[in-house]
Amino acid sequence: MTEIEFITTFLAENAGYAREKFAARGDLTVTSKTSPTDLLTEVDLTLQHRAIEKIREHFPDDQIVAEEGEFSTFPKDPHARCWVMDPIDGTSNFVKGIFPVYAISLAFAEKGIPQVGGVCLPDMDMTFLAERDKGATMNGKPCRVSQIQTLDASRIDVDFSTLKDRQTILSRASNIITSIGQIRCHGSAVCSIIQIATGDVEAYLHMSLNPWDYAAAQLIVEESGGVATRLDNSPLELFDGREGLLITNGAIHSDVLACIK
Amino acid sequence: MTEIEFITTFLAENAGYAREKFAARGDLTVTSKTSPTDLLTEVDLTLQHRAIEKIREHFPDDQIVAEEGEFSTFPKDPHARCWVMDPIDGTSNFVKGIFPVYAISLAFAEKGIPQVGGVCLPDMDMTFLAERDKGATMNGKPCRVSQIQTLDASRIDVDFSTLKDRQTILSRASNIITSIGQIRCHGSAVCSIIQIATGDVEAYLHMSLNPWDYAAAQLIVEESGGVATRLDNSPLELFDGREGLLITNGAIHSDVLACIK
Repeated sequence: MTEIEFITTFLAENAGYAREKFAARGDLTVTSKTSPTDLLTEVDLTLQHRAIEKIREHFPDDQIVAEEGEFSTFPKDPHARCWVMDPIDGTSNFVKGIFPVYAISLAFAEKGIPQVGGVCLPDMDMTFLAERDKGATMNGKPCRVSQIQTLDASRIDVDFSTLKDRQTILSRASNIITSIGQIRCHGSAVCSIIQIATGDVEAYLHMSLNPWDYAAAQLIVEESGGVATRLDNSPLELFDGREGLLITNGAIHSDVLACIK
Repeated sequence: MTEIEFITTFLAENAGYAREKFAARGDLTVTSKTSPTDLLTEVDLTLQHRAIEKIREHFPDDQIVAEEGEFSTFPKDPHARCWVMDPIDGTSNFVKGIFPVYAISLAFAEKGIPQVGGVCLPDMDMTFLAERDKGATMNGKPCRVSQIQTLDASRIDVDFSTLKDRQTILSRASNIITSIGQIRCHGSAVCSIIQIATGDVEAYLHMSLNPWDYAAAQLIVEESGGVATRLDNSPLELFDGREGLLITNGAIHSDVLACIK
């Protein structure tokens, strides 16, 4: 089984479970992690557990990095073969909020960058897949970033993240906030980034994101013609220990970077 | 026909049309209004036209205020019987973005405040209805705001609106942005406000909103136990010519107001 076959199969087999749990989310067991708004549900844990079991079955020598529990530690060799997973990105939206803004994200990385990635939006019936240098698709159709060239016609998704990052975001992002046409904040990195691949959003900015929040979606955007970098325009490496990133349609990348303080 | 019967019927008869157009939105005719991101579609115009025809048939002496064209002028007598409509709130999301974050909003006002209101989220199969002092419902079930009491456990929807308001928002809202647990920006006032009525969002803040953007949703939140005021805590009147507003679950209202500069 190839990595893309594995990801495709895993997402197809688990979308229904997430959708059912979202429909009946009033019954979920929800606990807090680091703050009152940092939530964990049985769905995150179940999906992560299922993925880890399957990865160990098919790729027993590979590293695994995932959002929950002890799997959130980075691999000793940052260039090793590694699976990178967020079982539910947007857990807070999964629990609270009427729109289904959550996603399952699974990537395979090697040499410190994502090589294969898949994102599923279960309630939207959308699955995005990409392999490096082979393009990206949404439900089998090619994805393409927008051709918008100017900030005033662009939409940015700024992730205001948790309270600890808020002052930094306000300081560093104030110039882009006052320069760009539209601002959104979806509260799910994956759901935000993936909309660059569909041409609906031009930029996504975050000051402290973890690899499982962007690995798959980053590759899907890159393979749709977009660009992903650190905030100093250096390459985005999953396990370099840095956190800020900018992902765009490419056309406005340097203009957005120039606004970041 | 009573006002609530009229609103209920109008929303039920037109949700399917909006849903069909959203599903086939690649074929829409889209034009810009005041800026590259201020959009208008045939769906806005058709729904507004249909509502106006029906209102004139059933309530021929009433005033009508609506978002598009010459109907956006306020009535000479701000206390007169008046229908207040946004045919599609979130037109930009209707055209661009993968999540169905748009709504049809229709309210009946008298004495300068909404007396009856209805909001339909066509793609979510959700219809909210309220009459003053009679409670609010979503698909027939009573709505209730959340009981969250503290800012760090709350979610606010801050509307970053258009470029002309951006500096004001950053200045006046910076204290609440750095104090509240979660921030969202949906780009549809109605979709944001209505989530206070469902207990999913605790506060909605906007610096320059028009009556058609909030009349129906405001009443639905108030009838769900929430509070709506101007930013100086004075009552929210539809046609007083003022623009800033705060709508909350009530419990955090004074704490949020205290943060607004």
